Amino acid sequence: MTSAPSTATASPTTRTAWTAPPVAPTAPVRLRPLAPGDARITGGFWSVRQQRNRSVALREGHAKLEEFGTLDNFRIAAGTREGEARGPIFQDSDAYKWLEAVAFEIGREDDPELREMQESVTAVIASAQAEDGYLNSVHQLRHGLEERYTNLAWNHELYCYGHLFQAAVAQSRCTGDDALLEVSLRALDHLGSVFGPGRHEGVAGHPEIEMALVELYRHTGRRDALDLARFLLERRGHGAILAEGIRDATYFSDRVPVREARTVEGHAVRALYLASGVADLAIEDGDEELLRRQEELFATMLATKTYVTGGMGSRWEGEAYGDPYELGPDRAYAETCAGIAAVQWAWRLLLATGREQYADFIERALYNAVLPGVSLSGTEYFYVNALQLRSQAHATTATQAVNGRGAWFDCACCPPNVMRTLASLDQYAATADAEGLQLHQYAEGVWTARLGEEALSVEVATGYPHAGQVRLRILEAPAGEAALSLRVPAWSASAELEDREGTQQLGPGLHTIRRVLVAGEELTLRLDLGARFVGAPHRLDASRGAVALERGPLVYALEQVDQTGPALVDDALVDPAAPVAEHPLEDLDGVVALDVAGWASPAPQVDVDAPWPYRPVSATAAVPGAPCTWRAIPYYAWANREVGPMRVWLPAAGA
Amino acid sequence: MTSAPSTATASPTTRTAWTAPPVAPTAPVRLRPLAPGDARITGGFWSVRQQRNRSVALREGHAKLEEFGTLDNFRIAAGTREGEARGPIFQDSDAYKWLEAVAFEIGREDDPELREMQESVTAVIASAQAEDGYLNSVHQLRHGLEERYTNLAWNHELYCYGHLFQAAVAQSRCTGDDALLEVSLRALDHLGSVFGPGRHEGVAGHPEIEMALVELYRHTGRRDALDLARFLLERRGHGAILAEGIRDATYFSDRVPVREARTVEGHAVRALYLASGVADLAIEDGDEELLRRQEELFATMLATKTYVTGGMGSRWEGEAYGDPYELGPDRAYAETCAGIAAVQWAWRLLLATGREQYADFIERALYNAVLPGVSLSGTEYFYVNALQLRSQAHATTATQAVNGRGAWFDCACCPPNVMRTLASLDQYAATADAEGLQLHQYAEGVWTARLGEEALSVEVATGYPHAGQVRLRILEAPAGEAALSLRVPAWSASAELEDREGTQQLGPGLHTIRRVLVAGEELTLRLDLGARFVGAPHRLDASRGAVALERGPLVYALEQVDQTGPALVDDALVDPAAPVAEHPLEDLDGVVALDVAGWASPAPQVDVDAPWPYRPVSATAAVPGAPCTWRAIPYYAWANREVGPMRVWLPAAGA
Repeated sequence: MTSAPSTATASPTTRTAWTAPPVAPTAPVRLRPLAPGDARITGGFWSVRQQRNRSVALREGHAKLEEFGTLDNFRIAAGTREGEARGPIFQDSDAYKWLEAVAFEIGREDDPELREMQESVTAVIASAQAEDGYLNSVHQLRHGLEERYTNLAWNHELYCYGHLFQAAVAQSRCTGDDALLEVSLRALDHLGSVFGPGRHEGVAGHPEIEMALVELYRHTGRRDALDLARFLLERRGHGAILAEGIRDATYFSDRVPVREARTVEGHAVRALYLASGVADLAIEDGDEELLRRQEELFATMLATKTYVTGGMGSRWEGEAYGDPYELGPDRAYAETCAGIAAVQWAWRLLLATGREQYADFIERALYNAVLPGVSLSGTEYFYVNALQLRSQAHATTATQAVNGRGAWFDCACCPPNVMRTLASLDQYAATADAEGLQLHQYAEGVWTARLGEEALSVEVATGYPHAGQVRLRILEAPAGEAALSLRVPAWSASAELEDREGTQQLGPGLHTIRRVLVAGEELTLRLDLGARFVGAPHRLDASRGAVALERGPLVYALEQVDQTGPALVDDALVDPAAPVAEHPLEDLDGVVALDVAGWASPAPQVDVDAPWPYRPVSATAAVPGAPCTWRAIPYYAWANREVGPMRVWLPAAGA
Repeated sequence: MTSAPSTATASPTTRTAWTAPPVAPTAPVRLRPLAPGDARITGGFWSVRQQRNRSVALREGHAKLEEFGTLDNFRIAAGTREGEARGPIFQDSDAYKWLEAVAFEIGREDDPELREMQESVTAVIASAQAEDGYLNSVHQLRHGLEERYTNLAWNHELYCYGHLFQAAVAQSRCTGDDALLEVSLRALDHLGSVFGPGRHEGVAGHPEIEMALVELYRHTGRRDALDLARFLLERRGHGAILAEGIRDATYFSDRVPVREARTVEGHAVRALYLASGVADLAIEDGDEELLRRQEELFATMLATKTYVTGGMGSRWEGEAYGDPYELGPDRAYAETCAGIAAVQWAWRLLLATGREQYADFIERALYNAVLPGVSLSGTEYFYVNALQLRSQAHATTATQAVNGRGAWFDCACCPPNVMRTLASLDQYAATADAEGLQLHQYAEGVWTARLGEEALSVEVATGYPHAGQVRLRILEAPAGEAALSLRVPAWSASAELEDREGTQQLGPGLHTIRRVLVAGEELTLRLDLGARFVGAPHRLDASRGAVALERGPLVYALEQVDQTGPALVDDALVDPAAPVAEHPLEDLDGVVALDVAGWASPAPQVDVDAPWPYRPVSATAAVPGAPCTWRAIPYYAWANREVGPMRVWLPAAGA
């Protein structure tokens, strides 16, 4: 089961390109992102995903940008092609997210074909920019320049700038190419001339530009970008969107000012992109009060509006958060983009506070809310991530689980969002502070903290998340004392660290080894991945009487294709008191299947003589059904063989 | 607790007006509806609702038809007023449903003011009819006559004719006024010239006209109406709506032909109006195969897609049925109109088959799926009937439970649908066949079966549904043997019938007393209303580990306003093994409150140090919380004092 430790020890100094963090290492945070080139996944679980993303998905993504007219929209706006705009008003953003992903990948390792795509797409985008810096090809073609910024609630102009800026910063940081940055700075100049106190004071319907502006400031030092971010954030929640005649301010995260928000609500991606921007502002302004509010908001979200997978948003109507504890698994919306957005927010809070619970959440969300959104092949995507698919389910819209993953969507926000997340994943594993290196996520690779003129560099070898052993080798260390911190996940019932000083038991949280470390030294962390059944809080009615099965950081699911008997997983009943057996599989890129003891509850009687289905409790049969064994696989891997009945929450005897 | 038996013995022969059934007594059914004037509610539970409907709601409804422009639309179309059409494309139907209710009420007892309203509204409608018989004021004003029937999927023209025909038949039957019938027959002539094999073969997006055409045939003998109904029904499910470029045929109940349908799906009201039309066709054509399919379809609906209340449709998206067992109480859509539509379908199947389970369903749906849709005052309506409202719920749309009931809606289908249902309720209580009278529902009043030249007439006195004793007095009986049948509801654990021959125990189902009955004779039926806890089927995941509390035909709910302690009903946990105490209340028009023993589960911890909310089962505290007593009231009565936390499904210890 355990993959062999990687023998490829990448040396940062031999590369000309480098990965660079989505949040600048220069931000005034407690834990710093690693500098460009200092975070590298080189093998193991995530590397496989990154390779497929790089070698297949990014190239197919380029083809989709052509097929769906995304690039043509820019060409038509530039006047180099005839035609009409295609796609939703925010379609430019697909190209920007794809470009951001490409930049991270070129940073990981140069690739002439990708670089050529990057340059040509960037040139196409640049050609569409209006003389005064305005850029939104669909809006230019559909509504003209005259109507710009007249429908901020729906027209996504600021949203698209946000993705443009993020792509530009990634391109500049990772590839040294400033072409998109130049487009962005022209747009920033233009925005500064339009928006601000006493000028245009409208509020955009879809937050996103705020965190992008802060990052643009971090990368370029342009203080007006930070000021504009602050202005836009402070403008929210004062009725500007309502003033446009739209009743539901909640949907737009515009019901209350950001400082007064006590719960995430409305459209989940909007709410979470906004929260990420607020975190960035709190960090840059050193606003401790706002940061504390953010921590409370995040905690309330975890306690009341988060699926066991870390998935976000339960309502199909408005792709939105529901009321507290409204978290039914069958209609879970849990948009892939919302999982990504939650990771972005948690990452900023981890950097700002150093509290390891954010790293715990990032781990859960990456494996169970983001990764299920992409097929093992890397090329098909779930927009919506249901936690249950029943037999006899019937699709009425393209994004329903019963349709399986799709190669692209009319609203194609998710695919390139997955691409940029996978391409930048190296950066979420570790941070640095003045004393040393913190490892938050375990992946095979090399992470380096710069400590003045010295460095602490650690190579990690592990079969994680399927195996619990993490081997660390010090590649480089300061002459004096340094601090190497390792996260023991909250789910790990026990953990053991073995190093030259012996073996010690560790509890959950960040454990710091503070001593002189020497190059070549090895340490081994052993996490307890043992399968466990978890229950939902009392108020989470939809999962009452059921348990979820987890192993290590992975949430598991029953999928019909793995069951050997005729019983449907619809009728599963498990015994959480019985031992769980582990079965490593070759299939699904290698996972550890779990066999749990239980019963198949009798399938319901459905005929004209069937009694009314709600029966007196006293009349309910005590027999749980036929004994059987149910096989579970990691939830992220479902729907890769066939699309059939699946469930994450397992009805449990005695639960 | 028991209301005094009514002493008013109405004599059908002294009235000039009469209630008349929505389904004609002439239909070739196994059980016949009673003839006009032979069904009368005279007191008790439903009489109170009918009086409020008559004296307040119908008059406020007329004011709303003016306020929302419904009548003005007709006036503008007629050229007697200037202006633009207001409201949705189907807004004419609000006037028709209101007129139908008024006709039933005038039939119950004449009222000069209502009759004047009826005549003036009918005249306004008639004035808008186009020369060739076409009528849809909103369509005439918005799209003109040229574009008629070009967008059958969305423009609701046939749907509106359906409601016109139903109102016209009710008006003609109950009030003797044929003015609206003349409008309808002109429209029928027009429809016959447009639709049919080889002519227009499109399929309407919203079924409704089908059952109306059958009834128009029954009332007038116009065979072309029946033929058109058959044509329209047989056309469904062959891709006609798809051909208009609309992908989701499911929404329109147009995915499969009606003879092949194996599950109700899509928009619930559409599916159920369609099913009612299919039942009517099966009845008129003597199509036993189709009728059997209908019975299977209904049974599948009950087994897999029906809430414990009888409510229909769980999805907010598309106001639709979900997948089988997708019946989460918190987001229950359970549209009031869908409950009404289900009663209409069940009524037809009861008539056609004589199977008492349809009467059982009608009872459940009337008390628990339709009645909750209207306030005790009779003037405010729920469009959507959630089965749970949590604390901290937040409204984003007008129809969410947290907003309480509303006086009218932009899409005002439900209010006049409730009005016509309450006004015609007398008719759903009893049927006749060649041998006698069948009492299916228990309400105070008089029901008469005509048996050749003779009659069997029974007066009922009862405090039902709050009291279980039903006293029957024979007012008139044939000289020879006759059959009086009484339904013992499936929920009644025991029932006792006392008559001159002694006392006997009855099991559930229709019990027939076949002997010589004499005027003045009394019989007493005693049903066991005893409170009972019921559980959901295994596959209904959202209600697992919870029980519903019922008493007699009523489903109960916990409402926060009734709880004496500080605990929220969000945290309720009940003990279904403990005895339930009954407490008659003056409040809420007199109900029997139920006190159940249980606990208040500890309120969740929500702060920045709260642990991840999904905890290992082994770590879950076994303590169920603080012991307390929870008070429940009938679900239909909720949200009449204040709108606060409410729940129908009660988490249960040991469930």
